[in-house]
Amino acid sequence: MSAGSINGSIDDRIDDRIGGKIELSLIGIGTGNPAHLTLQAVRALNGLDLILIPNKGRGKDDLAGLRQAICAEAITSTPGPRIVEFDLPVRDPAIVDYTARVDHWHDAIARIWIDTIRANLPPGGPAADAAKVGFLVWGDPSLYDSAMRIAERLRRTSDISLKIIPGVTSIQALTAAHAIPLNEIGAPFTVTTGRQLREKGWPPTADTLVVMLDGECSFQAIDPEDVEIWWSAYAGMDNQISRSGPLAQVADDIIATRAQARAEHGWIMDIYLLRKTAT
Amino acid sequence: MSAGSINGSIDDRIDDRIGGKIELSLIGIGTGNPAHLTLQAVRALNGLDLILIPNKGRGKDDLAGLRQAICAEAITSTPGPRIVEFDLPVRDPAIVDYTARVDHWHDAIARIWIDTIRANLPPGGPAADAAKVGFLVWGDPSLYDSAMRIAERLRRTSDISLKIIPGVTSIQALTAAHAIPLNEIGAPFTVTTGRQLREKGWPPTADTLVVMLDGECSFQAIDPEDVEIWWSAYAGMDNQISRSGPLAQVADDIIATRAQARAEHGWIMDIYLLRKTAT
Repeated sequence: MSAGSINGSIDDRIDDRIGGKIELSLIGIGTGNPAHLTLQAVRALNGLDLILIPNKGRGKDDLAGLRQAICAEAITSTPGPRIVEFDLPVRDPAIVDYTARVDHWHDAIARIWIDTIRANLPPGGPAADAAKVGFLVWGDPSLYDSAMRIAERLRRTSDISLKIIPGVTSIQALTAAHAIPLNEIGAPFTVTTGRQLREKGWPPTADTLVVMLDGECSFQAIDPEDVEIWWSAYAGMDNQISRSGPLAQVADDIIATRAQARAEHGWIMDIYLLRKTAT
Repeated sequence: MSAGSINGSIDDRIDDRIGGKIELSLIGIGTGNPAHLTLQAVRALNGLDLILIPNKGRGKDDLAGLRQAICAEAITSTPGPRIVEFDLPVRDPAIVDYTARVDHWHDAIARIWIDTIRANLPPGGPAADAAKVGFLVWGDPSLYDSAMRIAERLRRTSDISLKIIPGVTSIQALTAAHAIPLNEIGAPFTVTTGRQLREKGWPPTADTLVVMLDGECSFQAIDPEDVEIWWSAYAGMDNQISRSGPLAQVADDIIATRAQARAEHGWIMDIYLLRKTAT
């Protein structure tokens, strides 16, 4: 891989501590509905020796609990993989640059992965060719997710093979919830983040914009004239909430609905599509 | 739905011919590998009364055969849905404007859907609340696919409920094949078509570009300096072919590989990601 975007490094001391061959699977699980799992993901989960689940601390969000529930529903093999939770570090607020801060955080997580894998692999080393270690990745491993960048740190210096199992993304869950096409006929669309939308505005290229990773309802930063929005929280799950309409008319309702849902559930994942309607 | 992009119309005479209530499911099936099916898609397929499969004529492509194979593998219900193939019309070359040509084509397909549904629903009307009719959609129904726009024509005038089952897209199959992240950290990306890339060049917004619907290796139209490409054909399937590297170095190999694979299989589906590597 030479994606040109992985800048971090982990030192040799850490690397030395991995023993034996490891097959690392990053398994896209869709957006929280166990029925989003693909047959490929179910098979991969059942074939693992060890599953690692990040834990941000209960109460803050219940994503660890959701991943555990998905494992409980999908895994039927015996004895089945060992499932271990590990604590995620926090990002260092002293690092001002966003990309550098994220890189540093990924380094820290890579070290925790290695420690946790070492501590939890079956004693006596892997039974098969390689120990099979897996992570359940929300949506798809390629899309605004850290796991692939962290895995790449381990791969650089160790005998680790990487397997990616594609999954249904929240973009698909959003468009399915609203039964809308993602693109206009033959037209491009751009996927971006809340931060980008706030800092750079509507990109000039596309009339369709999907906004992810937005904790601040950043659609407030753009001119709502002739813009429609399709918004969903918990898209694809039983408690899915959806709103749509001209941005000027529905923005306030979305802001209030989002705040209330977040307070009720203790966490929220939401996504939206913006489309310019002027012809 | 008011996606602002569905301009066609079908006349009342056609609409009058639909009797009873219909639940229309557009089921994302991933990129041809039956293991890409989600559990939700498998359940939906097994619950249908009727599955319609478009047929472009054997020999030209084998996508109808692939859809039949996926049905054969996924459907275990008895008696199970009736599976019917129908012939797709050709686009009218006399209509010069691209969007108008596509709209006209969608109208023609909508009429064929109605005729085929009428002719093949179980005699005596649906046993349940509604007759359940489904289409297997390559990838995801929201992404560069006609089915949702055609379904919308039927919904406008008839008692049809529409259900979208999200699927793994070829974008996810591509990034999984290469084990690369889709986005740079926190950065946007644009998804576009071969035609757009040829006619408008690299859009100014994003350093990452995913190109779909490209029958002409349109990466030849851009300056290859400081651009990397990750290309896959039949992504996610057993016969997957992948190439990657600096565009200037691998473009010729991709063009030749694509031509050969297309000749061998009689059809090809490919997709690629372009990334600017200059910092």
